Amino acid sequence: MSSLFLRTLREDPADAEVPSHKLLVRAGYVRRTAPGIYTWLPLGLRVLRNIERIVREEMDAIGAQEIHFPALLPREPYEATGRWTEYGPLLFRLKDRKGADYLLGPTHEELFTQVVKGEYSSYKDYPVILYQIQNKYRDEARPRAGILRGREFLMKDSYSFDLTDEGLEQSYRLHRDAYVRIFDRLGLEYVVVKATSGAMGGSASEEFLAVAPTGEDTYVRSAGGYAANVEAVTTTPPPARPIEGLPPAQAHHTPDTPTIESLVDFLNEKAGLGRTFTAADTLKNVLVKTRLPGADEWTLLGVGVPGDREVDMKRLEAALEPAEVALLDEADFANNPFLVKGYIGPAALAANGVRYLVDPRVVTGTAWVTGADKPDHHVVDLVCGRDFTPDGTIEAAEVREGDPAPDGSGPLEAARGIEIGHVFQLGRKYADALGLDALGSDGKPVRITMGSYGIGVSRLVGVIAEQSHDESGLIWPRRVAPADVHVVIAGKTEEIAAGAERLAADLDAAGVRVLLDDRKATPGVKFADAELIGVPTIVVVGRGLANGVVEVKDRRSGERQEIAVETAVDHLVALTGAR
Amino acid sequence: MSSLFLRTLREDPADAEVPSHKLLVRAGYVRRTAPGIYTWLPLGLRVLRNIERIVREEMDAIGAQEIHFPALLPREPYEATGRWTEYGPLLFRLKDRKGADYLLGPTHEELFTQVVKGEYSSYKDYPVILYQIQNKYRDEARPRAGILRGREFLMKDSYSFDLTDEGLEQSYRLHRDAYVRIFDRLGLEYVVVKATSGAMGGSASEEFLAVAPTGEDTYVRSAGGYAANVEAVTTTPPPARPIEGLPPAQAHHTPDTPTIESLVDFLNEKAGLGRTFTAADTLKNVLVKTRLPGADEWTLLGVGVPGDREVDMKRLEAALEPAEVALLDEADFANNPFLVKGYIGPAALAANGVRYLVDPRVVTGTAWVTGADKPDHHVVDLVCGRDFTPDGTIEAAEVREGDPAPDGSGPLEAARGIEIGHVFQLGRKYADALGLDALGSDGKPVRITMGSYGIGVSRLVGVIAEQSHDESGLIWPRRVAPADVHVVIAGKTEEIAAGAERLAADLDAAGVRVLLDDRKATPGVKFADAELIGVPTIVVVGRGLANGVVEVKDRRSGERQEIAVETAVDHLVALTGAR
Repeated sequence: MSSLFLRTLREDPADAEVPSHKLLVRAGYVRRTAPGIYTWLPLGLRVLRNIERIVREEMDAIGAQEIHFPALLPREPYEATGRWTEYGPLLFRLKDRKGADYLLGPTHEELFTQVVKGEYSSYKDYPVILYQIQNKYRDEARPRAGILRGREFLMKDSYSFDLTDEGLEQSYRLHRDAYVRIFDRLGLEYVVVKATSGAMGGSASEEFLAVAPTGEDTYVRSAGGYAANVEAVTTTPPPARPIEGLPPAQAHHTPDTPTIESLVDFLNEKAGLGRTFTAADTLKNVLVKTRLPGADEWTLLGVGVPGDREVDMKRLEAALEPAEVALLDEADFANNPFLVKGYIGPAALAANGVRYLVDPRVVTGTAWVTGADKPDHHVVDLVCGRDFTPDGTIEAAEVREGDPAPDGSGPLEAARGIEIGHVFQLGRKYADALGLDALGSDGKPVRITMGSYGIGVSRLVGVIAEQSHDESGLIWPRRVAPADVHVVIAGKTEEIAAGAERLAADLDAAGVRVLLDDRKATPGVKFADAELIGVPTIVVVGRGLANGVVEVKDRRSGERQEIAVETAVDHLVALTGAR
Repeated sequence: MSSLFLRTLREDPADAEVPSHKLLVRAGYVRRTAPGIYTWLPLGLRVLRNIERIVREEMDAIGAQEIHFPALLPREPYEATGRWTEYGPLLFRLKDRKGADYLLGPTHEELFTQVVKGEYSSYKDYPVILYQIQNKYRDEARPRAGILRGREFLMKDSYSFDLTDEGLEQSYRLHRDAYVRIFDRLGLEYVVVKATSGAMGGSASEEFLAVAPTGEDTYVRSAGGYAANVEAVTTTPPPARPIEGLPPAQAHHTPDTPTIESLVDFLNEKAGLGRTFTAADTLKNVLVKTRLPGADEWTLLGVGVPGDREVDMKRLEAALEPAEVALLDEADFANNPFLVKGYIGPAALAANGVRYLVDPRVVTGTAWVTGADKPDHHVVDLVCGRDFTPDGTIEAAEVREGDPAPDGSGPLEAARGIEIGHVFQLGRKYADALGLDALGSDGKPVRITMGSYGIGVSRLVGVIAEQSHDESGLIWPRRVAPADVHVVIAGKTEEIAAGAERLAADLDAAGVRVLLDDRKATPGVKFADAELIGVPTIVVVGRGLANGVVEVKDRRSGERQEIAVETAVDHLVALTGAR
């Protein structure tokens, strides 16, 4: 450490909010070069490379083959798939000296598809899994949390190419299992959540989320083991009810009730209906417009949810993908005078051919208070299946803590996490866009189906730090630690220094990775730095050496043990699992 | 190979001119993604990583510490050193979503200087050597020769930081020695040439050039071991001669002699001087203008060289660095009427205060025919030291084959090479620009002096291929080869396939890296691909297996040897040096 390019800091960096960011900077693992762009100092680079090695080993073990694409990419393939435009400001774009358009790759679906198309032609060539561990670039609006959400970051991305859906299933399963092994080896606490596809299009998709209260991603889980992205939660519909015997629908004058709250108050206090209503008895109809990619025209869509729940725009967007969704503006209302703001009901939608999708809770035989399509009027006892018939259901209502898990495993609770991996059945989207076929055994072309699988390698350094630290500093799991043993010279005598150096040399010769603190600093400073840096085992060579002992401290538990110096190497080799 | 992501090509790529480019594409090592931007396929990536590992080992061995900078960099540090502008169109520039200027790092002097400034403060911190192995970006006007001159390429760049010039000398020496070890381990044929500093500014500098007739760089060498960039060749001045007894200078009317050739013809055929002149007897005065960085005004400069040599603009520019050099335009001549085009002589330059530098061969006592500063007139017998006194000497005349090496080691010959490494004493240029000081032991600041050292890691893949191939394909040195042994199944029987697979598995278990050709292809196709791919040892398992033998072929020499199959593993372990 007297020559190591490392200076620890006493103070947290001003821009840091989460513990991993603070500690990785203070302990000298990374330095900020620009917003969301970091430099790896020696200790940080070692941790990064250790993680990278574990990822590589497990990818190789499933037969994935490593290749390496450029980060600087031509526009054309991204133009072909529409992503040159779709990425919007997230994409770093630039021109070369000849004025040709380039981008810094945010992800490489197009390139992988192209390279397979270039090399392979026959069904005999498939399946194949290719991967790379490579820098990605995304111009995040708000880079944050140090390396947890950067603008230049290291990712493992792999892609599977199969002839059949069953083949894709198997490639997906191989990846999912490899990811479990990788995150287990990294010592992470994580959940696998059902995910929607996000911007990628496609079908089956799961996210690996590291459990972290500071995480950006919200998910829900049940005590019984269910876990999903909020966007992926499905609502279990109640059974349909008999319609017979239900009171007839009746319109009421309900002055000044444009909100659910004002409506419920009116019904209970002024309507004189002799019943008590709650927000859950009302049906809120939200009007939006949607547009499919490539289409010019917007189409109206009515979404009906129980009045006690908001429409969750993220869930709505996920449900309608790949269509775009937007709220109506004043012009839309002006152009569609049958939409009476605050009093929209199913009747006007049906009469005007507006598609109407409802929450799965709106089943046949349920009765609702809803808009009567004229100002200050609502209908009471409007029965689904009798008085209106929706065009289908949609998962657009917000998910709440306490809602039942769709698999019956108990009530849902919200939790936060950090996305560390994503496995995803892309299907034929990119093969369609770029024309990736194999010549089948019957001489006919077979369209290839793809999977896409990502791990945020540099992010994992931050995630592990986020999960594994205490007030004094970082606590690295042994497999990713920058060293196995941190030897502290805690004394000013020649004997102590010589003893520590000999021990360090012997450990090094035995295959133990040693960080030796040979600086001219007080033991207090050295101990504090050892805690901050977080090597899993700290060996203190101090006054005890005169009695033939050194102190071995476990960084995580804090346990200390005196060990005879002559058995220290064997003890530490066994402890660290070095060869 | 039945599942390896590899397809060899029969045809050379249309854009390829040099052998390495043709063969690396044909053998499936790299694929072009955009001009000067390549994708590494599995075999290519293995070779690249093998080279990277050797470079890393030797850098670590001299105590250099590895860090890793981003490739996407903010403008500010490059603005501080002037390189944001100086780099011109070679720099890839872009803006982020907020409109801030960024660049793709072409080299990282500024960042290394900044990071040391950020971490270190005391003289006790020094010296330190830092390095990275990282992608660089340069928007070359003419990317060529595949990965030999790309626009995205992998480089090892290191920087030394020292308190004293002696320290810098030692850091430089450490690097130079490490480079010799690296290039020796890679099996390269190379020369170390004295180099000028190029665009980097600074003092001592040497280039490592791989010998290659296809190389872009010209250098000169002597049989006695001298080697230098043309820009770095120095001219040994002849001894001064006595002035006494030389005939007086005399102006002559020399009509229509604006060129050296026409002048010599006139002197020999029409002047009636009774002597024979050659171009080497004339003194050609070339007028240029120079401007120091940051200056607005250009300054005239006269350069005098023997008339049998051209001025080499590259040598002139190198000699005048960091000043800019330009030829005079018509306006310059119009503004300086004392410059008589084609007839410029030292007299007018001296009379008008124009600095006049001459070739080192122009020593005291040498007599010249040169311009008389009026149209159609020359002076004969103008003696240096008597009739004119230059302001100094300059290395601007072209270097020719047959010129003596400056160290007396014999005549120079021209040769071509590819730059593979550069060691360079930067001095204090970047420390000055960015204010990198250490607090000295006396409490006073000490300006740090730096060295810069580069190796083109991805280029080396091409360079090795360029030096090591034959008509059939690549021939990798064992240390960088993508595999140790290429086992070919040459026969259709179950026994042959099973025998080859067993041998491959045994070799793999013994630590030998095996490429097994288990494809359904003819032996002829497999042999041709084995030669093309270039693994150093080819093992053919064919009919001989029935008699208990396999054939071991050396790719380079072509020698074949029959080996008993039961001793094959031991034989190949010994041959390949596997553990």
